[in-house]
Amino acid sequence: MSSWGNGVKLSVFGESHGEGIGAVIDGLPPGEELDIDGILLQMGRRAPGRDKAATPRLEKDMPEILSGVLNNRTTGAPLCAVIRNNNTRSQDYGNIMSCPRPAHADYTGYLRYNGFNDIRGGGHFSGRLTAPIVFAGAVCRQILGRRGIRIAAHIASVGGIEDKRFCGTDISPELMERLSCSVFGLIDPNKEEPMRALIEECRMSCDSIGGTVECAITGMPAGAGSPMFYGIENVISSVVFGIPAVKGIEFGSGFEGSRLRGSENNDEFFYDGDTVRTRTNNHGGILGGISTGMPIIFRTAIKPTPSIAKKQNTVDITKGENTVLEINGRHDPCIVVRAVPVVEAAAALAVINILKEVNMLGA
Amino acid sequence: MSSWGNGVKLSVFGESHGEGIGAVIDGLPPGEELDIDGILLQMGRRAPGRDKAATPRLEKDMPEILSGVLNNRTTGAPLCAVIRNNNTRSQDYGNIMSCPRPAHADYTGYLRYNGFNDIRGGGHFSGRLTAPIVFAGAVCRQILGRRGIRIAAHIASVGGIEDKRFCGTDISPELMERLSCSVFGLIDPNKEEPMRALIEECRMSCDSIGGTVECAITGMPAGAGSPMFYGIENVISSVVFGIPAVKGIEFGSGFEGSRLRGSENNDEFFYDGDTVRTRTNNHGGILGGISTGMPIIFRTAIKPTPSIAKKQNTVDITKGENTVLEINGRHDPCIVVRAVPVVEAAAALAVINILKEVNMLGA
Amino acid sequence: MSSWGNGVKLSVFGESHGEGIGAVIDGLPPGEELDIDGILLQMGRRAPGRDKAATPRLEKDMPEILSGVLNNRTTGAPLCAVIRNNNTRSQDYGNIMSCPRPAHADYTGYLRYNGFNDIRGGGHFSGRLTAPIVFAGAVCRQILGRRGIRIAAHIASVGGIEDKRFCGTDISPELMERLSCSVFGLIDPNKEEPMRALIEECRMSCDSIGGTVECAITGMPAGAGSPMFYGIENVISSVVFGIPAVKGIEFGSGFEGSRLRGSENNDEFFYDGDTVRTRTNNHGGILGGISTGMPIIFRTAIKPTPSIAKKQNTVDITKGENTVLEINGRHDPCIVVRAVPVVEAAAALAVINILKEVNMLGA
Amino acid sequence: MSSWGNGVKLSVFGESHGEGIGAVIDGLPPGEELDIDGILLQMGRRAPGRDKAATPRLEKDMPEILSGVLNNRTTGAPLCAVIRNNNTRSQDYGNIMSCPRPAHADYTGYLRYNGFNDIRGGGHFSGRLTAPIVFAGAVCRQILGRRGIRIAAHIASVGGIEDKRFCGTDISPELMERLSCSVFGLIDPNKEEPMRALIEECRMSCDSIGGTVECAITGMPAGAGSPMFYGIENVISSVVFGIPAVKGIEFGSGFEGSRLRGSENNDEFFYDGDTVRTRTNNHGGILGGISTGMPIIFRTAIKPTPSIAKKQNTVDITKGENTVLEINGRHDPCIVVRAVPVVEAAAALAVINILKEVNMLGA
Repeated sequence: MSSWGNGVKLSVFGESHGEGIGAVIDGLPPGEELDIDGILLQMGRRAPGRDKAATPRLEKDMPEILSGVLNNRTTGAPLCAVIRNNNTRSQDYGNIMSCPRPAHADYTGYLRYNGFNDIRGGGHFSGRLTAPIVFAGAVCRQILGRRGIRIAAHIASVGGIEDKRFCGTDISPELMERLSCSVFGLIDPNKEEPMRALIEECRMSCDSIGGTVECAITGMPAGAGSPMFYGIENVISSVVFGIPAVKGIEFGSGFEGSRLRGSENNDEFFYDGDTVRTRTNNHGGILGGISTGMPIIFRTAIKPTPSIAKKQNTVDITKGENTVLEINGRHDPCIVVRAVPVVEAAAALAVINILKEVNMLGA
Repeated sequence: MSSWGNGVKLSVFGESHGEGIGAVIDGLPPGEELDIDGILLQMGRRAPGRDKAATPRLEKDMPEILSGVLNNRTTGAPLCAVIRNNNTRSQDYGNIMSCPRPAHADYTGYLRYNGFNDIRGGGHFSGRLTAPIVFAGAVCRQILGRRGIRIAAHIASVGGIEDKRFCGTDISPELMERLSCSVFGLIDPNKEEPMRALIEECRMSCDSIGGTVECAITGMPAGAGSPMFYGIENVISSVVFGIPAVKGIEFGSGFEGSRLRGSENNDEFFYDGDTVRTRTNNHGGILGGISTGMPIIFRTAIKPTPSIAKKQNTVDITKGENTVLEINGRHDPCIVVRAVPVVEAAAALAVINILKEVNMLGA
Repeated sequence: MSSWGNGVKLSVFGESHGEGIGAVIDGLPPGEELDIDGILLQMGRRAPGRDKAATPRLEKDMPEILSGVLNNRTTGAPLCAVIRNNNTRSQDYGNIMSCPRPAHADYTGYLRYNGFNDIRGGGHFSGRLTAPIVFAGAVCRQILGRRGIRIAAHIASVGGIEDKRFCGTDISPELMERLSCSVFGLIDPNKEEPMRALIEECRMSCDSIGGTVECAITGMPAGAGSPMFYGIENVISSVVFGIPAVKGIEFGSGFEGSRLRGSENNDEFFYDGDTVRTRTNNHGGILGGISTGMPIIFRTAIKPTPSIAKKQNTVDITKGENTVLEINGRHDPCIVVRAVPVVEAAAALAVINILKEVNMLGA
Repeated sequence: MSSWGNGVKLSVFGESHGEGIGAVIDGLPPGEELDIDGILLQMGRRAPGRDKAATPRLEKDMPEILSGVLNNRTTGAPLCAVIRNNNTRSQDYGNIMSCPRPAHADYTGYLRYNGFNDIRGGGHFSGRLTAPIVFAGAVCRQILGRRGIRIAAHIASVGGIEDKRFCGTDISPELMERLSCSVFGLIDPNKEEPMRALIEECRMSCDSIGGTVECAITGMPAGAGSPMFYGIENVISSVVFGIPAVKGIEFGSGFEGSRLRGSENNDEFFYDGDTVRTRTNNHGGILGGISTGMPIIFRTAIKPTPSIAKKQNTVDITKGENTVLEINGRHDPCIVVRAVPVVEAAAALAVINILKEVNMLGA
């Protein structure tokens, strides 16, 4: 199902080479001003062809808002935005109809939909479907921004090259602002050159490379979220795994924390003036599924782009035999770069739902 | 919200020191025989006091089935099971009423429920609430077992000590069977002694230790799951993060895979007789949110038990000042051991929902 | 599915002759005081054997609250209440195992659950399952009462004998109070005698009789509810049709209004001091799915009790032939009387969900 | 919320005078052929200006399918269809901005959305929003038709003039076929003239008139639906009340049945060859929320069009005083005529969800 959310529902539609893609967002608070330039900025960060590390396929990706907005403000009714598909070269994908690409959803999509799914360009499984998610996230983050909540992510690693991590207890608004506008977002700008070199090397060797994205949410009010199955970790992960290529998520100290002792991993509470804070943030701003008021921090693992120019073994399901596949399409050697704003968008969708559930979104 | 699921809904209730805890499971297929001994076996694996590495608090944990079962078979109506609370020593938890334990939900629960939550023993946030989850999972795994689906997990690591990992392409039914009955489940039994030594060392030093649990699902039919927000990763993680202390999850090669190149991480398809399989299983049995028919494999990060006997700094929210906390209750130095069957139960709940969605559960 | 609701979720479980029945209510606001006597009063109104017009089967129906309440206040965690089954005489229902009772769910339940459903006493389809609904509604109405919202229903008709109707624009708190405590609730007490006579006549002739229940909700704040599929009519009817024997519902002027002209049915707005009200209330307090602040009024059609002592033709599904059925159990000749508090409870559940959705429930 | 459904989800968007309206349908079975002419036929039945009894406003109402369809077959991915808005005359609605029309959602929409809703033409509350519902229903009814399920409704009454009712036990495929294509659908064609005369009289007197729509579903397999809150009555009513102006619904003998005795209302079972049927159909094809295999029959009450040319009293919420309103727009004197295909569409949406829940939709 391509629908998600309770208080604010997102319904994503479209296929890579169909007429268009888009989203319906139902349940937005009324009267919220939309900054269209801000939305286009976010969509531009995700769009291919803006950065030399990305695929040269150009998308116009101009969303047309059909409903839910009047005089630049949300009406409270469902907001539908449509992005037309252009510049598609379906012939690039000819042989995948019978020969599923390794690590892609070609084979599983074929099974799930009895062969009726639109396989061109990955169809509904295409990374292009993250454009409506970024659109929806951009709308939500503007609404959250007015409540003092900021969301920003960065390229935490490409292959073995790591950026600095967020300092869990003290993230400056300036850093959040800078990252949330970056096309190649890094805390430590010195990592850009080696990362780009590695990506270029992968491209030249007809290969691709994975990485991780780290995301921070600051200004989150304490006491939001619910126990058990509607905790903040549950909600964020339920939407983040909707991003193609995400294969892991961890909050706070995460997998590293699993190697620690309680005395090392526990975050002590203290009074900072009238506010209860923690001295460290191994809990990633979440205890028992509920926000502590400290920054929410999570990392996601992004697998290397499945589409590589190298020859690969696969099956021919029409002939029922093994075969060799050569993919000719245009593909990012590293989708981590463009995944950054998508992860932020997923976080914004999660947060707006979490706040709405506990009446913390305001009128 | 302590409710979860679409086709098969789970509603968990109870507080650690209240009258009782339990679960309602709605949507089970009718006519399924229940093996009560099998259910008690699973609950015994989770129960404290069965293993010397666990807390000495004894629970009787005998579930009483109130509805949904007749002549030992499911009727199709909601199944409710209640577990009475006994042997609670509320006085152990006296000072946490005003002094939240670091890394626990005391503080966030207080905020979320305006101080009205039952804080005794952790209340609804207690690890004890995983007993109904194990019960529900035990019911589901019996139903799945009849369809050839097996679920088993093991202690993948305690602190820095690691067990072997599942071989993603070839997991024997014998291993699955052995692990799914184990109290201290390991693929490599030689790791038991060093792990126990480390846990005992932590106990003696008034500390605790974290770890990871790896879970495998074999016999999963190919083509189950849905794209985007109802993919298998989304569904599994949305229930797994309902287990207290879980702070991360990864599928297949996960975070490690994010360091690889596409040519390394892509799993090539081939015909194994008439069946399409992959030669490696970095995808963890899931592509595009949908099962490939290969084993589904995921790992979860479990933080060290927050409750440690060492003195810790915290706040006194009644007095509004910093203070020092000493916890006297009985606590596991390593909850990873008892988390193993809970992770399996969560997986069973996820899988039964995924199969029901695509009509693969059968009559 | 026996689960319902979004913000406040209800999960009902149990079978008529099983171990017990009950409900889990998840999402209640914390800190709400429970008046147990008030709850028992409501349950007593529904219980059989309290009124001579009802079945002589006696239920103790004492709910045991297992969770979600501490020191008589809601904790915010799920509230589970269990009612034990006693005084069941399963032998009364022997021949219905193969011979479905006309107008009952015996036949459809058999099909739906492949014959595995617990058919004794109607199983999960039994009217006894309305006891947990009344319990849940009693909890909700106390919470709503604190916000000035009152809910009351009356026997609008038994067969052709009609009570007066609510005056849609002016319903006194005294009437609401009186009705919400009545066992045989009528606006016009003079109708009690002829109604009772008719019911007694039906009993004596081994027959039963239907009727209607009219329900009013006063003090409803204006502006609650949502357009289209989450309007107040949708929400109320989605829960009211969960009451066995309900076959129709109408709001405001309802079916009668369908015979009117716009100039007759339209309710004119006017200022009553600072408050916008309508001079008539054909809209039943709801326009576009949203409350106007006028009383919400709806009527439900209750079919005659299907279980009658008269011989009836039916089928024997074991033998595959037509047969004649004689039912010996104890049955109400008119369930309308006991349906009154159930309809109120359903309304309370609907209203608490509607208010929670729009943040009108308060802290 | 303008989203509905579990297995097949519908998300409706748009405002009467915005850029466009439409729907996203998620969860359709893949490989289903779409007969576009059949869809347009259904949309034409609802469209204004096709029948002299309807408003002269002409809509082109040509849906553009953006996704979910390839080579005229469903792909299994979400199907989005957009209908552009043209021919809108916003100036007609000028004075309703401050003066809410009686019996309309102007006032409640204003409250619900803090005045930010698009009030032009009724905005999201407009009857025009039923066009996407008819579109979605037309898609679903084609899928259901392939499984032998037919859906048809007729004008059961206009004011006091009544059509014949469906014979509950025997509805011919020819009648179903004829009605499901009719613009002024009646079982008894002799009622067309008096009904049209009454409607015309209302128009001439600047007034409007209400009525009822009766809908039948034939070929419904027995054993579909679930007890309590997901019964067929609950599901149908939860979507039918999403149609503006619907104020009541009854199944089978409904309100009339509430006046009967059990011996009159109970439908006796008998074997018709190998099939279990009932001799009468007062239960409307549903017992315990589950289908018996007999035709499902329900009636809905449609209030008279609120917009009438007659002067009406209302309030001016800007000035805070009482005032008189004169509406100049183009309005149907009787929306019952155009409501017929909308009710059918709602039924189709309900049925496809009900069948999907119990795995009866097939591959």
